[in-house]
Amino acid sequence: MTEERRRSTPTPEQLRIWRGFIETGETLRARLAAQLQSESSLSTGDYQVLLALSEAEGHTARSSELAALIGWERSRLSHHLGRMEKRGLVRRVPCADGVHGVDVVLADAGAEAFRAANIPHLRAIRELFVDALSPEQLANVDDITAALRTHLGLEGDDHPADLSRG
Amino acid sequence: MTEERRRSTPTPEQLRIWRGFIETGETLRARLAAQLQSESSLSTGDYQVLLALSEAEGHTARSSELAALIGWERSRLSHHLGRMEKRGLVRRVPCADGVHGVDVVLADAGAEAFRAANIPHLRAIRELFVDALSPEQLANVDDITAALRTHLGLEGDDHPADLSRG
Repeated sequence: MTEERRRSTPTPEQLRIWRGFIETGETLRARLAAQLQSESSLSTGDYQVLLALSEAEGHTARSSELAALIGWERSRLSHHLGRMEKRGLVRRVPCADGVHGVDVVLADAGAEAFRAANIPHLRAIRELFVDALSPEQLANVDDITAALRTHLGLEGDDHPADLSRG
Repeated sequence: MTEERRRSTPTPEQLRIWRGFIETGETLRARLAAQLQSESSLSTGDYQVLLALSEAEGHTARSSELAALIGWERSRLSHHLGRMEKRGLVRRVPCADGVHGVDVVLADAGAEAFRAANIPHLRAIRELFVDALSPEQLANVDDITAALRTHLGLEGDDHPADLSRG
């Protein structure tokens, strides 16, 4: 191994920690997605859209704002909204300003599905994540996340805070 | 909010930390996947398969073992291997024991693609993750991951350790 490589790539220990971090996050997401699907027939994507609309003023958001809020490409969101619309969870209407764009509106069935799914989903987050960690460990997660977000240039991206209500 | 709900669901602060944790992991994975794809034309899935085969004895693994090692459903892996085989990255042959199952073999083009991709990918992990954190923060990541893995019943699952070489 050259000196250059030694300096620029992680040590085996750093790589072990990286893989543990990323794989544990994936396992958590997969467990929560399976729980959500089995208890409420919603995918994680459905839940994110319904959550964002539930919190939006008038239960309505521009599709471009929705894409930014949940961090998806607009084409991916558009396909996903098409499927949700067929299931009666959302409606898409021309923007109120009449110029361009689409407003996405939470439909009654979507509001009902979100209400039914939300408490079990939050309970699962508590059981699988919060209950695993001491208050100090939880504070350390916050510290680590903040350091990573600053490093990745995500500071000022208030997306997690936007979704922070209980 | 009822007393029952208050006890069983996360506080807004806990939920904010959860969302920061999970979304930062997703952002890191997306950034690394984009870097890998643009520099080497490999997907993260391709890389995981090539990494596992590179480390396997004789550069060969049973498809069932490979699925367990990468943590994928066997059907997902089978579809993925089909696409990799068409690109000449791997070969699938009947198991050496002649009874059942398939051995997956690293092809020359796959070994070459992995060699070309690996150092830039490791460098990106270093730049995006390791360099963001102090040694103490990195140790805290390890501590948090261990607590979560124990809580999720993943202890003894040595998958991250298996992939820990630099």
